[in-house]
Amino acid sequence: MKKYSTQMQAAKLGINTPQMQQVAAKEQVDIDWLREQVAQGSVVIPANIGHTSLSPEGVGCGLRTKINVNLGVSKDAFCYDAEMAKAQAAIRMGTAAIMDLSNYGKTHEFRQKLIQCSTAMIGTVPVYDALGFYEKELLEISAEEFLNVVEEHGKDGVDFVTIHAGINQHTAEVFERNPRLMNIVSRGGSLMYAWMRLNNRENPFYQYFDDLLQICRRYDLTLSLGDAMRPGGIHDSTDASQIQELLVLGELTKRAWAQDVQVMIEGPGHMSISDIAANVKLEKKLCHNAPFYVLGPLVTDIAPGYDHITGAIGGAIAAANGADFLCYVTPAEHLRLPTMEDMKEGIIAAKIAAHAADLAKGIKGAWEWDYRMSTARQELDWETMFNEAIDPIKARTYRESVQTEVEHSCSMCGKMCAIRTINKLRDGDQPGDSK
Amino acid sequence: MKKYSTQMQAAKLGINTPQMQQVAAKEQVDIDWLREQVAQGSVVIPANIGHTSLSPEGVGCGLRTKINVNLGVSKDAFCYDAEMAKAQAAIRMGTAAIMDLSNYGKTHEFRQKLIQCSTAMIGTVPVYDALGFYEKELLEISAEEFLNVVEEHGKDGVDFVTIHAGINQHTAEVFERNPRLMNIVSRGGSLMYAWMRLNNRENPFYQYFDDLLQICRRYDLTLSLGDAMRPGGIHDSTDASQIQELLVLGELTKRAWAQDVQVMIEGPGHMSISDIAANVKLEKKLCHNAPFYVLGPLVTDIAPGYDHITGAIGGAIAAANGADFLCYVTPAEHLRLPTMEDMKEGIIAAKIAAHAADLAKGIKGAWEWDYRMSTARQELDWETMFNEAIDPIKARTYRESVQTEVEHSCSMCGKMCAIRTINKLRDGDQPGDSK
Repeated sequence: MKKYSTQMQAAKLGINTPQMQQVAAKEQVDIDWLREQVAQGSVVIPANIGHTSLSPEGVGCGLRTKINVNLGVSKDAFCYDAEMAKAQAAIRMGTAAIMDLSNYGKTHEFRQKLIQCSTAMIGTVPVYDALGFYEKELLEISAEEFLNVVEEHGKDGVDFVTIHAGINQHTAEVFERNPRLMNIVSRGGSLMYAWMRLNNRENPFYQYFDDLLQICRRYDLTLSLGDAMRPGGIHDSTDASQIQELLVLGELTKRAWAQDVQVMIEGPGHMSISDIAANVKLEKKLCHNAPFYVLGPLVTDIAPGYDHITGAIGGAIAAANGADFLCYVTPAEHLRLPTMEDMKEGIIAAKIAAHAADLAKGIKGAWEWDYRMSTARQELDWETMFNEAIDPIKARTYRESVQTEVEHSCSMCGKMCAIRTINKLRDGDQPGDSK
Repeated sequence: MKKYSTQMQAAKLGINTPQMQQVAAKEQVDIDWLREQVAQGSVVIPANIGHTSLSPEGVGCGLRTKINVNLGVSKDAFCYDAEMAKAQAAIRMGTAAIMDLSNYGKTHEFRQKLIQCSTAMIGTVPVYDALGFYEKELLEISAEEFLNVVEEHGKDGVDFVTIHAGINQHTAEVFERNPRLMNIVSRGGSLMYAWMRLNNRENPFYQYFDDLLQICRRYDLTLSLGDAMRPGGIHDSTDASQIQELLVLGELTKRAWAQDVQVMIEGPGHMSISDIAANVKLEKKLCHNAPFYVLGPLVTDIAPGYDHITGAIGGAIAAANGADFLCYVTPAEHLRLPTMEDMKEGIIAAKIAAHAADLAKGIKGAWEWDYRMSTARQELDWETMFNEAIDPIKARTYRESVQTEVEHSCSMCGKMCAIRTINKLRDGDQPGDSK
């Protein structure tokens, strides 16, 4: 008989769970240190008790920056097989998490199938699913029904759920008193706000937060507290609505921890580079070092088609400043549901951002990878360079697309290759010749 | 009869040159403030007196972050027409500068043709050209001959030249006493070092720096003091060799300014995000606020094929911290000479980095662009979104590749589009319906 409900409860009881052992081994960190972080809430290990195929990962302070891939069907693009193929590819490419954002059709069946086969943790936004689940108009869904959808996701084995509980009546009033350019751009947040205003009632996830915690506790469902008020443009960043919501999330975090429920905090969004460090600091202070899960941030609004790049810039800066978990952004952001190719580009960009941040944070194992690559470059050892590359196939294809004059060099510098020049000088040869 | 030789001399004499007037108008800054920056050296306006087709740009403190595109033929890829087509495309895409790094064949003819038709400023690295120009082995080229190549480039109308004068005997000794993983990865720097060691002589550009300044003064050729010791991998960043060279560049900067020669300082290279702010600060302090021109920096070594992204992350952070000029990096970096497509991807990534930094720096006109885009998004005005996009064709192609259920929305969210939900609520409609 298991002596604990959640990873956090086990940690508080001083129990090293199998999940903690696996995470400690993957991260090359001390298990007792890790357990302490889980007990304090600065690390989460999202691992639903029903997700038996999971290879658990830790998210938080002192661990590698993780990435998340969003997928799922919508009414305009609802091929389940295509989404399942994307999920498998995303796992092969090393994503730590997949959020299934399906909001049309047989979401339940797809979700179960995905969880059965996924070694990556699975996240969802239950409110997306509520409309289809009940086949009702938004305003007719009851508070209890919203909670029941979360319970269904917990039963299915979902590891973490995004819940927009911070947009309560008070946050909504602050929003209404402080006009912004883009209003609410969070899909789940806009639905909760519409429900609150149409029904003239408090946000059910805020009002019945204790009931929600009991559901989470039952399945060790990690709460990812969503940011309904995240800025949808540079102009709205770090405004009163956003920070008001963060204050609410900080209080909810403490209530969740008191029930041994693990918590992450979701963050922006669109913001200027000059705002990022302050936003990470604010989240860490106001939410008591709960792991910070950021969407982007996108450092400019003007690059639709290239938001994997604007997101990689923002994500790298945020993570270097302490953010723990990066939601990938694809070139399709703001334009369409991502294709397989869009997804792959998004994953590579997010992995680059996460790894660059890990170098900056001094995370174990990060520097060694770059050291191996640089050593191979110094030795003009192309096979090792390809093997160490984040995308070996692209690297090889590029290099081999042009015939080179000089063996070991590439078509950019030819015999003027600086590395070749210095190596030849070292070996007593003339730098200019073609050997 | 013109009363001045260089923009800097004019600025010191209190003369507002036509070039200053054009730059002030482009940047929406006060002409007297701009002249003061040019006089102090914190802004350069590279404008060879012979480059009559130039539309001058300022580079430095308080101005928009500029980008540079490298092109030119090498022995493995020497189609002049292809390089000219790339130059024309780069100018259309808004690059402020093109560096012609040709190192094989008829460089002189190509360079002249390029300067004749280029509204962008043109930079070169004369030492690349010296081997072909004299048809001699490297060690047989004399100090005087190296200087003569610079004079030839000045005569041709080149606006700025990279000169590796900081790798003098002292820097070379520091390098030899402090082993690094990648040694010297600067092409020009490795040639100068090889020349110095094979001939057992001082770096000619350092030894005859005063003569070099007279050449620069004659044509108002801006010096871009190259960083021979730039790190070629994360491991070598901010080491003794690199900082020793920067100390030399700081002294050379003052000597150049005493002769009214404009100066930029070139910077790394590969470095962790955690090193970037300190590097910018060091350059600005040690080189007395001379504009900082960075190659990257690339924030990890492990992403060949995606170095436009590693460079965009580093460039955005460097520029947000005060770097003034970003040398673009393409997906071909470390692998091959860039194709037209590689170049375009590199330009877009560099433009995103520069603009994101300008938002952070609060540069005039930067915020307005994002404001227009966000306003169009809020109004679901797709035509304006396409027009304001950094790449209108890609944005339109993505959006229009999928048929959408709901007019004005996109296939990612369909009728769950947050903006649509809030707009409908505002207008008194039901968020859930398909209108």
